[in-house]
Amino acid sequence: MSTQLVHTIAEVREAVASARRQGLTIEFVPTMGALHEGHGSLMDLARRPQGFLVVSIFVNPIQFDRPDDYERYPRTLEADVEFCRARGVDLVFAPSIEEMYPQPQRTFVEVTGLTEHLCGRFRPGHFRGVTTVVTKLFGIVQPDRAYFGEKDAQQLAVVRRMVRDLNLPVEIVSGPTVREADGLAMSSRNRRLDPEHRRAAPAIYRALQAAAARVAAGAEDPGEVRSAALRVLEAEPLLRVEYLEIVDPEEIQPVAGITDEVLIACAVWAGNVRLIDSVRARPGRGEVR
Amino acid sequence: MSTQLVHTIAEVREAVASARRQGLTIEFVPTMGALHEGHGSLMDLARRPQGFLVVSIFVNPIQFDRPDDYERYPRTLEADVEFCRARGVDLVFAPSIEEMYPQPQRTFVEVTGLTEHLCGRFRPGHFRGVTTVVTKLFGIVQPDRAYFGEKDAQQLAVVRRMVRDLNLPVEIVSGPTVREADGLAMSSRNRRLDPEHRRAAPAIYRALQAAAARVAAGAEDPGEVRSAALRVLEAEPLLRVEYLEIVDPEEIQPVAGITDEVLIACAVWAGNVRLIDSVRARPGRGEVR
Repeated sequence: MSTQLVHTIAEVREAVASARRQGLTIEFVPTMGALHEGHGSLMDLARRPQGFLVVSIFVNPIQFDRPDDYERYPRTLEADVEFCRARGVDLVFAPSIEEMYPQPQRTFVEVTGLTEHLCGRFRPGHFRGVTTVVTKLFGIVQPDRAYFGEKDAQQLAVVRRMVRDLNLPVEIVSGPTVREADGLAMSSRNRRLDPEHRRAAPAIYRALQAAAARVAAGAEDPGEVRSAALRVLEAEPLLRVEYLEIVDPEEIQPVAGITDEVLIACAVWAGNVRLIDSVRARPGRGEVR
Repeated sequence: MSTQLVHTIAEVREAVASARRQGLTIEFVPTMGALHEGHGSLMDLARRPQGFLVVSIFVNPIQFDRPDDYERYPRTLEADVEFCRARGVDLVFAPSIEEMYPQPQRTFVEVTGLTEHLCGRFRPGHFRGVTTVVTKLFGIVQPDRAYFGEKDAQQLAVVRRMVRDLNLPVEIVSGPTVREADGLAMSSRNRRLDPEHRRAAPAIYRALQAAAARVAAGAEDPGEVRSAALRVLEAEPLLRVEYLEIVDPEEIQPVAGITDEVLIACAVWAGNVRLIDSVRARPGRGEVR
């Protein structure tokens, strides 16, 4: 089986229509490239005997709040296509900016409420950029199912809500966070860490685990749970916490007391690299995934 | 041939999927009901030998800026279904509010720029409500083509732009404004006019024609063209002009000089009923449609 690389919307639509005529379902993993095992696990989830697997690779300018982050975002198309080939991807869609935004973009999809906290608070316009490009990609690929990583927990909640609210004809499937042996969540941005910061970074997951352990032990006060995580992070001078919050996993609103499953999510700066991670925890059961 | 009336999204999806399996295309006319010949002409346009014709009837609360307009909007489902039957519609989708908005709507589709002037200036949130519900309806019906009237010229431009910007897999087809014998543009709101205001209302189209005639005669100054229309309207004491503007037909921005085709659009109050109308005009050729 061969992997086809295309750059235009017309080519995607043609390939997808042809797959549909063969009775295949369309399975879609949208990415920004710099592929790693986190993406790989989503592709494994998305590869189905009667499915046509599409991966998009597009570093979407309108979801970056800082120009330097956009400019430095790793771009490794050749390796990414090779990666997709090894994972049995049928079609790689790697459009140019001009193909995706041929004229000034005037239309935006916005999810309110769920984007007020966590990354939404610190990255103005970020989720608007994400939901807009995901809607565009859904319109181009018209998938039966689309796959998103649980590491970007707020993004996953936002996309799920968008699909429900807009009655988009696609099923959202999530895949668990894939971690390095030392616990660091896989991210395309990890390759921008220098060795010193790379050594410090696993404290992020340890901090989340410490918080989840407090929840499992019956702690109901979010402040107490938060403190348990912050103590771990403060012991690591190379890390700077942007936020660490305890929210309900669907509406992404801070909880007053922990009585049901919660999402513990943080953004942490390691030098000039911003990393995010999250775990879910349930009272009496600790981290659930 | 029979017309099926359904109220749920699941029933629409099933009927549409079945039509697709029969090799039919899906043709879609979204409406708010209170159907008249304007809708009828769109249905005539949309009825195709190999097509499955879907009409939605839904008075969408989130596009009304004034509660009284929403409450008084005519609702005539039984007559509407009969109307659709006579026009060869295959499926009428008349959902409840709860079917369309089962949970608080958090996701909105917004077209910027094109919604700053004309109705967008006087009806805050109106177009956001329109583009959001149209996106939802497209997600539910998944039409090949959707049909909109040219009378709602700004809405048509906004929906066209939204479809392009979001790469929605649907073709937008427009149908010309249908008018009463005296020139009044057909509108569901016309039936709320009392006899006196009904007699006054045709001045709206006469005013637009006067403006188009100035353009045809070579007038390049929008102020001069606007005055020609306003003179006609001011002669009719029962009408009150909300706006009367000359804009470019795609970006819906006021023009400084008339050198190319323009849209002359207005909103006029006849008592407590707000009516809109528009014509296109081209230098040296006058009204073009």
